[in-house]
Amino acid sequence: MGQQDGQALMELVAGSRSQCHKGKVADYIPMLAKASAETLGIDLHKIGEKNPLEAGDSTTVFTMQSISKVFTLILALMDWGEEVIFEKVGMEPTGDNFNSMVKLELVEPGRPFNPMINAGAIAITSLIKGASPQTKFKRILGFIRTVAGDEKLDYDREIFESEVATADRNRSLGYFLKHNHFLEGNVEAHLQVYFKHCSISVTCRHLARMAMIMANNGLDPDNGKEIIPKRYVQIAKVFMISCGMYNASGEFAIQVGIPAKSGVSGGIMAIVPGKMGISVIGPALSNKGNSVAGVHLLQRLSEKWQLNMF
Amino acid sequence: MGQQDGQALMELVAGSRSQCHKGKVADYIPMLAKASAETLGIDLHKIGEKNPLEAGDSTTVFTMQSISKVFTLILALMDWGEEVIFEKVGMEPTGDNFNSMVKLELVEPGRPFNPMINAGAIAITSLIKGASPQTKFKRILGFIRTVAGDEKLDYDREIFESEVATADRNRSLGYFLKHNHFLEGNVEAHLQVYFKHCSISVTCRHLARMAMIMANNGLDPDNGKEIIPKRYVQIAKVFMISCGMYNASGEFAIQVGIPAKSGVSGGIMAIVPGKMGISVIGPALSNKGNSVAGVHLLQRLSEKWQLNMF
Amino acid sequence: MGQQDGQALMELVAGSRSQCHKGKVADYIPMLAKASAETLGIDLHKIGEKNPLEAGDSTTVFTMQSISKVFTLILALMDWGEEVIFEKVGMEPTGDNFNSMVKLELVEPGRPFNPMINAGAIAITSLIKGASPQTKFKRILGFIRTVAGDEKLDYDREIFESEVATADRNRSLGYFLKHNHFLEGNVEAHLQVYFKHCSISVTCRHLARMAMIMANNGLDPDNGKEIIPKRYVQIAKVFMISCGMYNASGEFAIQVGIPAKSGVSGGIMAIVPGKMGISVIGPALSNKGNSVAGVHLLQRLSEKWQLNMF
Amino acid sequence: MGQQDGQALMELVAGSRSQCHKGKVADYIPMLAKASAETLGIDLHKIGEKNPLEAGDSTTVFTMQSISKVFTLILALMDWGEEVIFEKVGMEPTGDNFNSMVKLELVEPGRPFNPMINAGAIAITSLIKGASPQTKFKRILGFIRTVAGDEKLDYDREIFESEVATADRNRSLGYFLKHNHFLEGNVEAHLQVYFKHCSISVTCRHLARMAMIMANNGLDPDNGKEIIPKRYVQIAKVFMISCGMYNASGEFAIQVGIPAKSGVSGGIMAIVPGKMGISVIGPALSNKGNSVAGVHLLQRLSEKWQLNMF
Repeated sequence: MGQQDGQALMELVAGSRSQCHKGKVADYIPMLAKASAETLGIDLHKIGEKNPLEAGDSTTVFTMQSISKVFTLILALMDWGEEVIFEKVGMEPTGDNFNSMVKLELVEPGRPFNPMINAGAIAITSLIKGASPQTKFKRILGFIRTVAGDEKLDYDREIFESEVATADRNRSLGYFLKHNHFLEGNVEAHLQVYFKHCSISVTCRHLARMAMIMANNGLDPDNGKEIIPKRYVQIAKVFMISCGMYNASGEFAIQVGIPAKSGVSGGIMAIVPGKMGISVIGPALSNKGNSVAGVHLLQRLSEKWQLNMF
Repeated sequence: MGQQDGQALMELVAGSRSQCHKGKVADYIPMLAKASAETLGIDLHKIGEKNPLEAGDSTTVFTMQSISKVFTLILALMDWGEEVIFEKVGMEPTGDNFNSMVKLELVEPGRPFNPMINAGAIAITSLIKGASPQTKFKRILGFIRTVAGDEKLDYDREIFESEVATADRNRSLGYFLKHNHFLEGNVEAHLQVYFKHCSISVTCRHLARMAMIMANNGLDPDNGKEIIPKRYVQIAKVFMISCGMYNASGEFAIQVGIPAKSGVSGGIMAIVPGKMGISVIGPALSNKGNSVAGVHLLQRLSEKWQLNMF
Repeated sequence: MGQQDGQALMELVAGSRSQCHKGKVADYIPMLAKASAETLGIDLHKIGEKNPLEAGDSTTVFTMQSISKVFTLILALMDWGEEVIFEKVGMEPTGDNFNSMVKLELVEPGRPFNPMINAGAIAITSLIKGASPQTKFKRILGFIRTVAGDEKLDYDREIFESEVATADRNRSLGYFLKHNHFLEGNVEAHLQVYFKHCSISVTCRHLARMAMIMANNGLDPDNGKEIIPKRYVQIAKVFMISCGMYNASGEFAIQVGIPAKSGVSGGIMAIVPGKMGISVIGPALSNKGNSVAGVHLLQRLSEKWQLNMF
Repeated sequence: MGQQDGQALMELVAGSRSQCHKGKVADYIPMLAKASAETLGIDLHKIGEKNPLEAGDSTTVFTMQSISKVFTLILALMDWGEEVIFEKVGMEPTGDNFNSMVKLELVEPGRPFNPMINAGAIAITSLIKGASPQTKFKRILGFIRTVAGDEKLDYDREIFESEVATADRNRSLGYFLKHNHFLEGNVEAHLQVYFKHCSISVTCRHLARMAMIMANNGLDPDNGKEIIPKRYVQIAKVFMISCGMYNASGEFAIQVGIPAKSGVSGGIMAIVPGKMGISVIGPALSNKGNSVAGVHLLQRLSEKWQLNMF
């Protein structure tokens, strides 16, 4: 990417930063509430380019939160294959609130609609192979390190402990899943693994590289090695389009038009198939749970560079 | 009660026993599944009479299950008064399934509709005063012993342990209540107290005496001592009329017309205000969770002796 | 009733009038919005007494609205008997909003929970015997005139037309019922009958006399003639206790403890079984749809004269 | 397309025909029930090719049903622009049953989730410009004729009248929308327009051409003329991916991976962006409302020719 692109990106960030004040930093745990509402950063990683393009507060460290759901889904698919996984979680998008319990019961009692809602992601986490919770998490962390290309990635202990301490809704989901036989074993142990992978610390650079690998159908462009089977990248992209942005997923698909997944820390990971990976960080969230300035920035970027895949 | 009444009662039991085969013994825990579907017994305790009238399998021992909810509600009211209690649970009847989660969320997020549904009863249990779960349960057991007039009543350890082992739905409810601030402290500890009081072993004679005390507005007719304040008997009777028989409460109120509370063990405790307490045991349940033959028997009894309070 | 009672009643009305400002007059149709928020009146009709006791704005004219549901239910029962009626509507109380559609679908698709919610009342209205909508309404009006003891009662054409003009939610309910086979024939024609009986104009004196007849088990105390079969009075009273006051029915049963039915015009008809009928008018409504000052007044009356039936 | 493709297509159809028996022809109106469960046909229309490729029962005539929703959405967007349209209907996918009413109320009262569910499509139809229902429908028909390239297309009067006669659920939806101000004017008139466009008769050739125009971003490849603005094709494709196949939309996106819309007549219109339009007819439906053999056929086609866009 040339200097011109860099300049354009800086201008886009500057233009979207004014949106930050429209959002609110997540504060259900004190550690997340520390993030600055003013922060806005972006990282673009084109397939085949060594150096990603960055602008704004792109070096901010934040936790993956729901973005990690994409990779536990992929790892679970690699562990078990499609058939087994989709017995435990559905494939249907849902426009409901991201952790509503109502959806769990209305249709098929207890079976989560899809792997992107909390209940689905907890069920998926419970399926990751491993003799112990520690082993399970080690495998998830190892996988995410590989995709991110950084063997030093780790989870943030403080955030993790805060999450565990305020986890009653997820605990409730976990026991409800167990009651309905969509989750087996020790709920608390599964939740520990779940909160650990949600608490993995990254910067935009990591997320953009992860998205770039997916944009490249799972292949590492440096050596052609398959990190993720193409089919599982495909599945993940469908879920990202239909339910990656909580109950603003439809709106994002129409306005931006690329597979993306957001987290309550304010991060968004977006894929431009065949071209690049993009990530943004902007902790000020809309009432739907997505980075306000981040979505604004991605929309303008999509329009300017014609990224919409539809 | 005279011989004539006894004869009439025997005939009523004989006539309703044929209904047993229409129901199904609860089998979500093995210990409950052991009960005989053929069992049907009744006990009538008139205010002021020493000897209750019994017929059928009235000496069968069974656990109180949901019937205990009436007494934890009363004890919680005695501990805190109306105002505090009805901040934590609502007063509105609901026709939904007895442990549905949907109802918890649709109206006021997380606040149970009333103290008779599982969520409400768990919240109520958590409010019972006591420095420890042990003390709380001791107080509940002590209160129930007093109302039943039997200091030897105790809980069934096997049933209790079975309940705890299959409690994931209630666990889910507990954490959901905690998430929404309608329950505080250790969910698992509250559930232990809850399952203990559900597991208190009784016979029809105990339940009929408890109902008789309530029929007498909370006074022990032998010595005129107030066991339950009249106002709290009143409140309990309203809930028994409107939601004491799961989602067949409305039908029962229309067909039988007296305050009653049933449990999945097949017991029903019914109050004929100013006159008597009645209890039945019949483990074969309808799909609504009530004793099929028990309800049949109470309906015929109500018609024969004009017990309908409406 | 003596002078003393009259004095007490006046004081009670004076004391409750201050509650009027806490409510809001229904304004979904302009004609209802004309009612004065300051109005508060009461009428007590003891069984066997010629002259009812009145206080406050007891001569205010208002429309029956949902209070008429009680009498269409009774007339439908008289037309068809219990069995037929309860195939079309359920007997279960519901704490939901008075015209919510959600409840219609969650349990048994399309079957209304009970005859007091709009959907149930519309289905009941459709069952009233009569060769034409005109005949049906004539029969309803005739029946209500008889119970009220006033052959000149009629419906308010202006209110009726306003209701018809703003009836889209009820129209929606009607077609939904028809789709699910809980209503047959011309939806619009049924709705016309429904809105006509909701628009019958009364004063407190009429409602109190109607309640008095029910308090007397359906018999006219003047001549001993049966106006309503006792069994159907019984059924109506159960529904009034469990769902007569919209989704504050449980609270009313606990705080006041007598069968009652309210309407959005601010009227409430209440029954003190074996003793008297009571009616109040107070157009300022709570957010649950009941007269704020009217409920306040009934609660104080119930406490003062020990009217609670539980 | 060459002879080889034709041969391949015939084999695919032959292989999927065995799936027909797993489905059930829609029978809510008698006219639809007449369709043969054994029917299976397909038509492929590549951009720039004169002659589409056909196999099986591709000349079967059937009604567009829900497939017409795509074109009323596009026409409404052309009439009003994005902003106005998305005030009246949402953009969020929903995995619920195709005409459930529950979804209408749970989130934003009365606002349909998206233009593909019945409530949304009815609201969209009401927005089509035109001085009268006749003019509105004339404009819709004219637009569909242009996209299909056949000026003789018309609606099937028998089907239309059947639909109107059994329309109570949609009538209910219509009045509910009106009550909540998401639809204005005469509900019945809007429904007439709605049922007329659902009753437009087509063959696979028409649908494949329509899909081909969309695959070509709205341009007629013969003359380069813009029939649909590219942006509105884009929007339609997003909805087709996320909610074009009722509550099996997520599964279809994962298994087949192309924008598609199905109807209860058994037709499916699918778009392979930049390449071709595809249509199938197979009246035997799954319990989700989609052609069983049609979906099977499209899945095998997608795998064989790598059509998945993800």
